Amino acid sequence: MSDNKVLASFDEIRALMQEVPGPDISAGADATARQAQLTKPAGSLGRLEEIAAWLATWQGRHPAVVDRPYTAVFAANHGIAARGVSAYPAEVTKQMVANFINGGAAVNQLCALSDADLRVYEMALEEPTADFSETPAMTEEDCVRAMAYGMMAVEDNIDVLALGEMGIGNTTSAAALCTALFGGTAADWAGRGTGIDDPTLARKIELIDQAMERHRAVMTDPLEILRCVGGLELSAIAGAVLAARMSRTPVLLDGFACTAAAAVLYAIDPRALDHCMVAHLSVEPGHQRLLETIGQTPLVDFGMRLGEGSGAAMAILVLKAACACHTGMATFAEAGVSGPA
Amino acid sequence: MSDNKVLASFDEIRALMQEVPGPDISAGADATARQAQLTKPAGSLGRLEEIAAWLATWQGRHPAVVDRPYTAVFAANHGIAARGVSAYPAEVTKQMVANFINGGAAVNQLCALSDADLRVYEMALEEPTADFSETPAMTEEDCVRAMAYGMMAVEDNIDVLALGEMGIGNTTSAAALCTALFGGTAADWAGRGTGIDDPTLARKIELIDQAMERHRAVMTDPLEILRCVGGLELSAIAGAVLAARMSRTPVLLDGFACTAAAAVLYAIDPRALDHCMVAHLSVEPGHQRLLETIGQTPLVDFGMRLGEGSGAAMAILVLKAACACHTGMATFAEAGVSGPA
Repeated sequence: MSDNKVLASFDEIRALMQEVPGPDISAGADATARQAQLTKPAGSLGRLEEIAAWLATWQGRHPAVVDRPYTAVFAANHGIAARGVSAYPAEVTKQMVANFINGGAAVNQLCALSDADLRVYEMALEEPTADFSETPAMTEEDCVRAMAYGMMAVEDNIDVLALGEMGIGNTTSAAALCTALFGGTAADWAGRGTGIDDPTLARKIELIDQAMERHRAVMTDPLEILRCVGGLELSAIAGAVLAARMSRTPVLLDGFACTAAAAVLYAIDPRALDHCMVAHLSVEPGHQRLLETIGQTPLVDFGMRLGEGSGAAMAILVLKAACACHTGMATFAEAGVSGPA
Repeated sequence: MSDNKVLASFDEIRALMQEVPGPDISAGADATARQAQLTKPAGSLGRLEEIAAWLATWQGRHPAVVDRPYTAVFAANHGIAARGVSAYPAEVTKQMVANFINGGAAVNQLCALSDADLRVYEMALEEPTADFSETPAMTEEDCVRAMAYGMMAVEDNIDVLALGEMGIGNTTSAAALCTALFGGTAADWAGRGTGIDDPTLARKIELIDQAMERHRAVMTDPLEILRCVGGLELSAIAGAVLAARMSRTPVLLDGFACTAAAAVLYAIDPRALDHCMVAHLSVEPGHQRLLETIGQTPLVDFGMRLGEGSGAAMAILVLKAACACHTGMATFAEAGVSGPA
């Protein structure tokens, strides 16, 4: 964000959400009008046409551009991981951050391919959030600070923001967020994450149910839910989504944890994610349920469940394809091609 | 193809199909083994992992590469178009070929983005096939020549071949192919193509049913079906798919017409398309039915129905993403990342 406003409370976040810009209907209409003139049957590029109009609508300009895509991966640790909810030990968060920095992860290869800048935001890996099955994961101050940290990742020269996360244990946190935000039971939202066995899945569900019981009285709104059962990286993602809206930057959300973080904003205002597209459908079963709840259709379904922004980074290529067709194609008039008989 | 064998009869095509190489199981296994060592939970890249193994299996080398993708678009005209089965006049085929050559079509933009060479093969546009509702579309000689022409498009230095077509009226031909190859009625396979109205769709169906009746006695095998109701560009695609198999070049098929052309080979031998992936699910309803029939799962579903290889060219990006992850990612050992606890 250009103006580094220091946020200190949930009330300030709530106030900010009242001020976000809406769609640029005019830019979107310009895109739709151009689509009708391009050398193809009307509507025949399907979702690529929709994307071109969506990008224009939320960048607030026509034609939209995807010349400076940026992938932000937020990494943090979770107290709940100590309860054995993941197939991997918590130190993998830090090891994977090193892998990102050294260029060895999937997201590195996908960002290189899509010509996207990639930055990894390491969030106090030695200081995990509290075990939310016992106490709230964060104080309001910590949660707001994490959101503000995420907001600062949205720099002015970005035209599309792809978001991702790394945090051993964070599908447990994401499932808890969804249960508290949208109802149902922990079993409706919890899945196998990185690949846990049946007893571990049963423990994961039990811990989430326990958290719902324990924090029921204080989880009075979405931000309180984020504070009680969320994580630092998930708070940062929510902040980044909000800041991107303010700076007219369309967002690609990744899988279950990333979408759950963004869904905190949706629960506050269902229009809050209109500038976001979900890159892919995760194998994590809660993702499908979440996408239906927030009314999002993922771009692709590749059976991925890696996180770290891998799906979002890949989807940058789809946005580039949409822009390339929209900008580069000839019109019927330019090409001397006959229209329908 | 490296050896420009002159093919003159269906019998020679049939003989060639007996000689094609099978999968390179060893290269595929090498890819799968490497996937297990990369810094991600096992299987978490989903279809991207499957693609990396499939590419290795059919390129016959590990790691597979997608450095020289090639898009071949075959264009031809159809006698059936004179019966008013398309929303567009037949001269659009030639106009769109000019648009391809001038760089103004969707496929041009998508090939530029995926760094693929693009070549358009113009097939006697002034000499459409015969109206197949009256007489067979082609002689055996013409059909074989068109197949051989398609085979020559598969040059030695290509590592992936994306196929597409342009031909006003060719979804009528494709629907007729499917009806004759796989049964059902014309109404099961015919759709709105470039966007026809109800009376035109009814005429399209009636003409296909008429063709089925008329050619029933001679459509004794898939190649005879191709000759009777296919087209020059569809024959060329079938030839290109066969030649790609011979030269160990994996193939991306585009939408309904392209897949229907390839399905002629499937009807001869169900293993004949194992080196092919279908790039996307077309809006044309026959495509879904066809994919179920030939056991193919399309890579993406973007609601596209443009043809001209647009979906196949876009899917090159997906193959590149799969290769980039497979080749560029660090192993657990290299990155010092802990495996599952």
